Amino acid sequence: MNAHDTQTLDAVALADAPAYADILAAAARIAPHAHATPVLTSRALDELAGCRLHFKCENLQRGGAFKFRGACNAVFSLSDEQAARGIVTQSSGNHGGAIALAARLRGARATVVAPHNTPKVKLAAIRAYGADVVFCEPAQSARDVMTAQVLADTGGVLVHPFNDPRVIAGQGTATLELMAAAPGLDAVIAPVSGGGLLSGTAIAAHGGDPAIAVYGAEPQGARDAHDSLAEGRRITGRATDTVCDGLRAELGTLTFPILRSHVREVLLVDDAQAIAAMRLIWERMKLVVEPSGAVPLAAVLAHRDLFAGRSVGLIVSGGNVDLDQAAHWFAAQAS
Amino acid sequence: MNAHDTQTLDAVALADAPAYADILAAAARIAPHAHATPVLTSRALDELAGCRLHFKCENLQRGGAFKFRGACNAVFSLSDEQAARGIVTQSSGNHGGAIALAARLRGARATVVAPHNTPKVKLAAIRAYGADVVFCEPAQSARDVMTAQVLADTGGVLVHPFNDPRVIAGQGTATLELMAAAPGLDAVIAPVSGGGLLSGTAIAAHGGDPAIAVYGAEPQGARDAHDSLAEGRRITGRATDTVCDGLRAELGTLTFPILRSHVREVLLVDDAQAIAAMRLIWERMKLVVEPSGAVPLAAVLAHRDLFAGRSVGLIVSGGNVDLDQAAHWFAAQAS
Repeated sequence: MNAHDTQTLDAVALADAPAYADILAAAARIAPHAHATPVLTSRALDELAGCRLHFKCENLQRGGAFKFRGACNAVFSLSDEQAARGIVTQSSGNHGGAIALAARLRGARATVVAPHNTPKVKLAAIRAYGADVVFCEPAQSARDVMTAQVLADTGGVLVHPFNDPRVIAGQGTATLELMAAAPGLDAVIAPVSGGGLLSGTAIAAHGGDPAIAVYGAEPQGARDAHDSLAEGRRITGRATDTVCDGLRAELGTLTFPILRSHVREVLLVDDAQAIAAMRLIWERMKLVVEPSGAVPLAAVLAHRDLFAGRSVGLIVSGGNVDLDQAAHWFAAQAS
Repeated sequence: MNAHDTQTLDAVALADAPAYADILAAAARIAPHAHATPVLTSRALDELAGCRLHFKCENLQRGGAFKFRGACNAVFSLSDEQAARGIVTQSSGNHGGAIALAARLRGARATVVAPHNTPKVKLAAIRAYGADVVFCEPAQSARDVMTAQVLADTGGVLVHPFNDPRVIAGQGTATLELMAAAPGLDAVIAPVSGGGLLSGTAIAAHGGDPAIAVYGAEPQGARDAHDSLAEGRRITGRATDTVCDGLRAELGTLTFPILRSHVREVLLVDDAQAIAAMRLIWERMKLVVEPSGAVPLAAVLAHRDLFAGRSVGLIVSGGNVDLDQAAHWFAAQAS
């Protein structure tokens, strides 16, 4: 495929991207169900970072992660006829739980295709909300095959974890709230995995203020978004190696062109930086965040020059972490 | 001393108690400096408790505890002449850090009399805000002697951790915010140690709605407030044994009569219940709280019948806990 073809495909995909108005509509749609999470600040961390930080606390969202926003918007966008057919998704993490919860609120059935190595705590959350779980092999191709099979068997409706304009619009609502609580932001940083959160963040930010610099933050061990944007083509099929279990997915066909047109840079951090930033947020801000949720702060601390003296919004994406596992990470880093 | 004398003394002390108007004035005085902390809810914990819980998150206050409210109100109530003389207090914990911070904001010197076994992390916080530390033996009598000595040497002004109407008024501002965020509360529960927080909570609650039931929550291993209210006399000089390091003080001459006239009951919990409640808040609400801050939730869970179906406000008093220590508590309880 040559550069011209890539641009054409991007244009096609971008036509499916949600607009700012879709994010405003999503905010109204999910308002009865989702938390308007607080935006918190810390003078201690401002001093450490050399800039003014505004933390959008999606760890305090229902289900413990921003994922509920997108899932809720997608599920409540369905017609009654669609909802009655049941909702199908694939997830090894927070999106599965979010879809299960949103489906329960809608009164719809949900089936989550999950790799058999999904953490038990995440499976328990999905089942606690009443969804069915269908297991598959961990590889993405196996997940896709099983998802197609479940869709065919059940006649259900797919809500993809990130490559879906309704999901992207829902994720963007966090940034609407962030900008209302912290007017005049110079920059906003969100973690990037499949790119749904960062896409929604970017569209919401630039809809409200086209001058805001939008950054992604990504672990070195899952740097497909960084490299995809640098090379101008979507890189897939790489192995990942990072403690940030929420950030191992690859950009999708819809999120890649959105990020290309909106994101200034994807900033890389290593796992030690992510765990150190996580500990700072626990200790200084008294918030339980998972490693993925601390990656934006880690990115600021690793790239102080970019943000010196500026006002910066950070999307703290989630707080679903096993406390005993977290204690092990902290102990390993201290020794 | 007979019952009549006790009543007379109570009446004298109550004349010094802050009024509702003093709490409203304190709210205006500290507004430029203190955080208006969020009030958070959790459907999962509501289901577990069988009532509607509203968590006032003072772990997210500056300095990581409600203590900054009272310290700030007291320090900014001083005349310029008083402030210039310097501020003296005694504390082995959060109050010392709160006074140090408030004094720095006021541009005043502060001296904290601290027992020599004060945790290093708390000493570091006090010194980081620029206060001087003077060490003494841990016994209350030794603390009082050293405090008197420092007051004589420096000519400074005492701000007692809890037996001070300006401090009590400041602590009450948290409940003003709680009631504004969660109208129609049936009950409010605060931890009780020296009684400053619970006194301020009670005066604020009953000033806004005389029908609210005000409860204290206290560890079994430091149950002087429970027993003092039950026996109608202030019990002092007992040894304490609890992991709740913020709740080991005894009621004061001012706080005891305030609690007698306002508090329906002091609910007792054991340390295992406090740690279990602490873990629930970390896991379900994604908030780092210290054992003392989890005692109100522990009290609800241990006394479900009192609160069934009601709307209950809980003061989450602080989040200053060593993460490694917390991991040990959790691990010990799981085994």
